[in-house]
Amino acid sequence: MKLNELLERLNNLKRIPRTGWLLCNIPLGEVEDVAQHTFDVAAITLLLADELGRTGTKLNRERALSMAVVHDWAEASIGDFPYTALKHLGPAGTKKNIEEKALGDILRGLPNKEKYMGLWREYSEKHTVEAKLVHASDYLSMLVQAVKYHERGHRSRELDELWAAVEKDLQPYTEEFPQIKGLVAELRKLFR
Amino acid sequence: MKLNELLERLNNLKRIPRTGWLLCNIPLGEVEDVAQHTFDVAAITLLLADELGRTGTKLNRERALSMAVVHDWAEASIGDFPYTALKHLGPAGTKKNIEEKALGDILRGLPNKEKYMGLWREYSEKHTVEAKLVHASDYLSMLVQAVKYHERGHRSRELDELWAAVEKDLQPYTEEFPQIKGLVAELRKLFR
Amino acid sequence: MKLNELLERLNNLKRIPRTGWLLCNIPLGEVEDVAQHTFDVAAITLLLADELGRTGTKLNRERALSMAVVHDWAEASIGDFPYTALKHLGPAGTKKNIEEKALGDILRGLPNKEKYMGLWREYSEKHTVEAKLVHASDYLSMLVQAVKYHERGHRSRELDELWAAVEKDLQPYTEEFPQIKGLVAELRKLFR
Amino acid sequence: MKLNELLERLNNLKRIPRTGWLLCNIPLGEVEDVAQHTFDVAAITLLLADELGRTGTKLNRERALSMAVVHDWAEASIGDFPYTALKHLGPAGTKKNIEEKALGDILRGLPNKEKYMGLWREYSEKHTVEAKLVHASDYLSMLVQAVKYHERGHRSRELDELWAAVEKDLQPYTEEFPQIKGLVAELRKLFR
Amino acid sequence: MKLNELLERLNNLKRIPRTGWLLCNIPLGEVEDVAQHTFDVAAITLLLADELGRTGTKLNRERALSMAVVHDWAEASIGDFPYTALKHLGPAGTKKNIEEKALGDILRGLPNKEKYMGLWREYSEKHTVEAKLVHASDYLSMLVQAVKYHERGHRSRELDELWAAVEKDLQPYTEEFPQIKGLVAELRKLFR
Amino acid sequence: MKLNELLERLNNLKRIPRTGWLLCNIPLGEVEDVAQHTFDVAAITLLLADELGRTGTKLNRERALSMAVVHDWAEASIGDFPYTALKHLGPAGTKKNIEEKALGDILRGLPNKEKYMGLWREYSEKHTVEAKLVHASDYLSMLVQAVKYHERGHRSRELDELWAAVEKDLQPYTEEFPQIKGLVAELRKLFR
Repeated sequence: MKLNELLERLNNLKRIPRTGWLLCNIPLGEVEDVAQHTFDVAAITLLLADELGRTGTKLNRERALSMAVVHDWAEASIGDFPYTALKHLGPAGTKKNIEEKALGDILRGLPNKEKYMGLWREYSEKHTVEAKLVHASDYLSMLVQAVKYHERGHRSRELDELWAAVEKDLQPYTEEFPQIKGLVAELRKLFR
Repeated sequence: MKLNELLERLNNLKRIPRTGWLLCNIPLGEVEDVAQHTFDVAAITLLLADELGRTGTKLNRERALSMAVVHDWAEASIGDFPYTALKHLGPAGTKKNIEEKALGDILRGLPNKEKYMGLWREYSEKHTVEAKLVHASDYLSMLVQAVKYHERGHRSRELDELWAAVEKDLQPYTEEFPQIKGLVAELRKLFR
Repeated sequence: MKLNELLERLNNLKRIPRTGWLLCNIPLGEVEDVAQHTFDVAAITLLLADELGRTGTKLNRERALSMAVVHDWAEASIGDFPYTALKHLGPAGTKKNIEEKALGDILRGLPNKEKYMGLWREYSEKHTVEAKLVHASDYLSMLVQAVKYHERGHRSRELDELWAAVEKDLQPYTEEFPQIKGLVAELRKLFR
Repeated sequence: MKLNELLERLNNLKRIPRTGWLLCNIPLGEVEDVAQHTFDVAAITLLLADELGRTGTKLNRERALSMAVVHDWAEASIGDFPYTALKHLGPAGTKKNIEEKALGDILRGLPNKEKYMGLWREYSEKHTVEAKLVHASDYLSMLVQAVKYHERGHRSRELDELWAAVEKDLQPYTEEFPQIKGLVAELRKLFR
Repeated sequence: MKLNELLERLNNLKRIPRTGWLLCNIPLGEVEDVAQHTFDVAAITLLLADELGRTGTKLNRERALSMAVVHDWAEASIGDFPYTALKHLGPAGTKKNIEEKALGDILRGLPNKEKYMGLWREYSEKHTVEAKLVHASDYLSMLVQAVKYHERGHRSRELDELWAAVEKDLQPYTEEFPQIKGLVAELRKLFR
Repeated sequence: MKLNELLERLNNLKRIPRTGWLLCNIPLGEVEDVAQHTFDVAAITLLLADELGRTGTKLNRERALSMAVVHDWAEASIGDFPYTALKHLGPAGTKKNIEEKALGDILRGLPNKEKYMGLWREYSEKHTVEAKLVHASDYLSMLVQAVKYHERGHRSRELDELWAAVEKDLQPYTEEFPQIKGLVAELRKLFR
């Protein structure tokens, strides 16, 4: 795929809605898309990386930022599987396989393809501190967005369940990065 | 799931975009959703069933209509997998398995659950004349919608490829139901 | 009108907003359209028909489903008169006359035209059990949609009045079909 | 109706789509609404009134502007009847009757009610130079908007027919106000 | 600029969002645009001018209405500066200078250019009773719109602050026109 | 400003439209917002940084990526000045001053504030290779988006002028980074 084709393909992310919100009764006219979400994740990654750096955590900012930018590129060709679809996808790892194939397909022929495949694999394996940071940022971005939907009046069992699930998924990362506990607490106050 | 919960769940279909169009550069503000699409399929099924009936084909209209109404209910919980995701999903039949599980989940506890599961299975197996009619209607609805997007100025390689793929998928059904050949020809004239 | 012209005309229903919601302050970006509404009515008709069948009511499912699919086709050419316009339309029956002429116009030249005219007339006369079922489904679909708007934070005198009017219009049908009383009660709990 | 209630009611015009465009395949996400349209008509009325004044036509600008602002208020309660509905409405004058009753209803209890009823009647009777000017502005606003839709790629038989109908309806006014002939010619060049 | 070019330029106002709402978390899919806002201001100016006239205030309705229609034309080329940008714009009068230049640019070559420049200057200088009336109408339109957003469930610190700021800016005009005090009080009840 | 407040403020960027497109007749329902745009710029910066790195240019990827993420944060409080407003803003440097103050305001109290101010200043001064790369990416993202609008049928003098202006602004960067010449040429073919 030539660079212009890749850029056109990534443009799709401006039109791929984050399906989780749709299932919480958010209308298409105000649903977050994957490009907007990725902006959020990159901005939070940058802010947290600097904050963690300031308070002593060692990490590679370049890799963390690159991972944030790349983490959802596969969705440009396969869309965003809703949370509720995952349990029907089959054995653990199925989603990861699908996304890896899709990403490989999008990047085929690109000289630096393997770098991006590597960043994406690192992200999905969640072992390095940079991958953990991007996952934490991903979840935090959902809390912020949920607060904004809450401010617009949205209330539903589904939205409450999504919040609870995200808080639970965040748990290991608030232990890893205790600096974000205060932020989660502030957001929780705004959502309740 | 109680009936009110099922109805609320089906309401999701008004917010699930048909992903194929999004990948053809159709913006979220004018993308067809699954509820609109299902209306189209039901209306075309009704019109074709009567036309086929008039010209001698025997079929069970009640079953055909019910199948049209039910055929995409699973998407209320798993969304609409884009065409381009299918090749990464794994062995043939994977998509069918996922959808069947999702539909079973949505309908659990409903006294008439097995009737709808049966209609959906009949639809996905494509053996009966009713199932074939609904598939033909499904493809025809895409041609009509593509014509309307074309009228709004949309032109892209992706849209052309989608059209070609749909015409190809329609092929066995135009042989089965030669009465629709004229309709396809008219629509093709409007798209070119 | 050739079949492709009829299908293009019916495509309008994806762009005709249900005016009642607009007058309740629902923005154009999240208003239900007539195609989405018709999907709802067909799905509810199917579910109720089976439920009534299971509990002993005799009815013709094919006719009920066909009526549900057809009931708002006239709006493809005349749009959706808001509730508040009806009292200014003149003598009772005026709206029915307008819709009948519009439908006749849309269907002119279609071999099965009279079948659809007949289904629509049966629907608007509300005498048969099938017509009553479709009317009940039409009103129930409004309650479900109102619940979803309520979940998004919408509150207004107009929305409350619309709910009350729909509940009142449903009354004769909950007497006809006591099986739906529980459903209405559940929805009312979610709206209040 | 108290003044705050009237203002809330007029706010509906920001949500009432101009149905004619919807029938030309313009999606809800980019359809003009009645408030936007009224802004156009008022602006064109102001510009033309001054231009006509400069070239010798005598007219009462205050009355013309007031008429432009008021001309579609009735639509806040009855919506915008599509062009294609008019022929089914019954005897000539039916639409005028409906709108007059609706406007009376909206304005009931307002001390200056009769002034606005009078302006609206003057507008619909098309006898005075001011009423003719507002009608000319109404049609010109449609040509400008059609040009903008054309620039976005919209092409359809319906849009061409709408343009032709508007040009025909404009005819008597271009004779009355020859100063606008050049403007119509410029717009026609942009639409073709 | 020829008249058709000016009309095309003013058409931009249908696409320029009122930025203040965006900063209150109102999504693009339901944000008021400048054309809709101008309709509101013109309608309120008309209604208040007549009400003031009835209760003894002398004013020139033609000039007030013309001013209302013209007051935001500059935004067709420079957009709507958000409230929060003003404090960074530099010395008092900077915004006025920018708008005046932009308006001059839009109107260049128009025979009646100076009339509109004069109306706009009168509006921004706020000395005449007509200019004060249009400013009062401008603020009142924001209160009405805020009430409608409130009805849709929107609640935020930013929206509360905007309301408070508008009420404060309205103060001198409620003293000038005590007839509007009741209206403000009614709207406040709906917002709280 | 606490971190949660900063994140809520940055969320505004999902609602701030890129005004340049609005002035090219792109409707609000399909206009790019600043968050989507920033995603594009970050992705292009990443891809080009790696491509330049591969072909021998030395640059600091971390700083380039951080700059891309930060470059439009000020718009969260002042919105996006349209191109056509700049000439009315006063002496060169006015826009930069406004943005710098706005950014300082958003970041006040943040421990790492000076780092982001520094990145933003480096970006606006365009001296370093990283700043030049982000500017090139910014312009390239506009070409890609223009191609996508073109695919949807948008054609206008304004869009052509925007393209020409962007190509001209890109000129110094295609000289600096000859590796992007091919990309620009490919995109130009798609736009013409």
